[in-house]
Amino acid sequence: MSERIYNFNPGPAMLPLPALEEAREELLNFKGSGMSILEISHRSALFESVLQSAIARVKRLLGLDDRYQVLFMQGGASLQFTLVPMNLAPGGAPVDYVDTGTWSTKAIKEARIVGNPVRVVASSEDKEYTYIPKEIPVNADAAYLHITSNNTIRGTQFRSFPDAGAVPLVSDMSSDIFSRVFDPKPFGLIYAGAQKNVGPAGVTLVIIRQDLLERVPGNLPTMLKYTTHAEKNSLYNTPPCFAIYMVELVLKWLEEHVGGLAKMEAINREKARLLYEYLDSQDFYRGTAQPDSRSWMNVTFRLPSAELEKKFIDESQKAGLGGLKGHRSVGGCRASLYNAMPVEGVRTLVEFMKDFVRHNG
Amino acid sequence: MSERIYNFNPGPAMLPLPALEEAREELLNFKGSGMSILEISHRSALFESVLQSAIARVKRLLGLDDRYQVLFMQGGASLQFTLVPMNLAPGGAPVDYVDTGTWSTKAIKEARIVGNPVRVVASSEDKEYTYIPKEIPVNADAAYLHITSNNTIRGTQFRSFPDAGAVPLVSDMSSDIFSRVFDPKPFGLIYAGAQKNVGPAGVTLVIIRQDLLERVPGNLPTMLKYTTHAEKNSLYNTPPCFAIYMVELVLKWLEEHVGGLAKMEAINREKARLLYEYLDSQDFYRGTAQPDSRSWMNVTFRLPSAELEKKFIDESQKAGLGGLKGHRSVGGCRASLYNAMPVEGVRTLVEFMKDFVRHNG
Repeated sequence: MSERIYNFNPGPAMLPLPALEEAREELLNFKGSGMSILEISHRSALFESVLQSAIARVKRLLGLDDRYQVLFMQGGASLQFTLVPMNLAPGGAPVDYVDTGTWSTKAIKEARIVGNPVRVVASSEDKEYTYIPKEIPVNADAAYLHITSNNTIRGTQFRSFPDAGAVPLVSDMSSDIFSRVFDPKPFGLIYAGAQKNVGPAGVTLVIIRQDLLERVPGNLPTMLKYTTHAEKNSLYNTPPCFAIYMVELVLKWLEEHVGGLAKMEAINREKARLLYEYLDSQDFYRGTAQPDSRSWMNVTFRLPSAELEKKFIDESQKAGLGGLKGHRSVGGCRASLYNAMPVEGVRTLVEFMKDFVRHNG
Repeated sequence: MSERIYNFNPGPAMLPLPALEEAREELLNFKGSGMSILEISHRSALFESVLQSAIARVKRLLGLDDRYQVLFMQGGASLQFTLVPMNLAPGGAPVDYVDTGTWSTKAIKEARIVGNPVRVVASSEDKEYTYIPKEIPVNADAAYLHITSNNTIRGTQFRSFPDAGAVPLVSDMSSDIFSRVFDPKPFGLIYAGAQKNVGPAGVTLVIIRQDLLERVPGNLPTMLKYTTHAEKNSLYNTPPCFAIYMVELVLKWLEEHVGGLAKMEAINREKARLLYEYLDSQDFYRGTAQPDSRSWMNVTFRLPSAELEKKFIDESQKAGLGGLKGHRSVGGCRASLYNAMPVEGVRTLVEFMKDFVRHNG
């Protein structure tokens, strides 16, 4: 195949073509330096400008005020599962979690290993995590309230965030950050593995409200302290320079090509509408998430049988629609509609789905 | 400047041009998949083949037998400073370190934070870390003996490794792995940030002898356990796919273009000889490392004054020789001669140095 496909991968995922093209264009010689971006010093003025631009774009796009600091770390959301309780809940303070499936379940597990009292204040385990809990009790003594804003595996997403009052919200937004407008002010910390909406795998975006840095215990290992990375502006040690560079290019596309977060939200809303309206209009495919908890990022659905699902995935692949297989833990099908997926990709998918029914329904 | 320069950066550093060209060639469409390597799933067969090839190349190049497992992690050597004592010295076992400057000093600091009794069995602090200690006492009760094989800042390098008997050697080889042939058998664990000889920043190569995995305490946070990454073949969570892909391309160049480690060593020996012989032949430039401890990777030297050093760095930059500034903690000049630097680059540097003396000596 010589052309690019519509890539519905759940992450690492499709990236905006202009970002990839710019990276290719200057891969052997970055800004006339005679070096690749892969070869320049992280302490050079050239890299400093990439880093500062990436940080500024994150702050502009999300409307973050000066109380927030933007960090680029390594280890993915999986490492953040540990760092959050280790850094933000010293002295064995209780920590509250909403369990909406796999990723929050893992976050809860790691908080328990760190040793804080963990309270699961709401859960959708009773219905196989097919919904987002409506009632989320808030405990005033919690060090934070942790949520996973979007569940890639079950295809669920918070449509609005809990009101936790003075308790800072902490959210894993790996799979839906930059997909819609939201008010950042209730959040004490937001983290996101880049490989869905922000860039390639290998860098984790961390947004921390600076008053939370005062909680970080001094005796933690240096690399595991948010303060280390905050004080050195993500340059305590060599950062994942290329991944940060790609984040800058992706966010440039979002600001300058798409036109900002409100426009991105409108596009994402339209993509989700197209696919869910089709799912609701027939009974061959069946959406698995409860309608009021449906994710705009990951649309999960089943076909009448596992055999048909396999055939659907095989034939869609041949038709230039990639990555439609559901997560191995739940099976079925899944279309991930991250920012870089154009509306036309979703239209093509819906046409393919209709055609598949005609031949197999 | 439209052409590529000779890049003497200490890391991130020069990469082999064929590796960069191959990455550029397929950046928008990897192996006919219709996706960039930046967009493919880490659980796809396509990525699996990249990962397996990278592992196989590491094992072939270093002559590792089946007792060793090759991991790709994140967080750089700086995170390994913490993980090594945390994983390999449970129950408060004493750990031994050789202090040869900045990087080993940091490793020692982190081991102390983890809480094990740390014994600095040898140190070159008395002479500003300008040499590698000759006598290294070995304690049979040590969980391991840690060394930093090459010091990028002081320009020193172990020419042979200590004989620690049954005590496993642990080495930070970030700045000289794959630069020469060595016997891996005394080593229990080797780690290396990729951004000097192995690839771009953003991935850490970890080579562990499997019997050491039995030491790993079960109650550590999941991401901080070597066993997690070993059991899942570096795919517990999303790895830094692109950085691993670049490692595969760099090691392919080393095997197929250079012709293996013995040939690489001969080239590196020749590059170091050219520069050190010139340094020893005159008295304008002065090498800072003791001759028997000189690094082949980082050649550190001073000029008669800080003013001349600044002029040297400025003029060398204009002449297409980049990255010759010494580390900010010690000043002076430094030429990093990692694997990707061709002999011709060193010849060009020596000619520039001679010319600079003619005009400024």
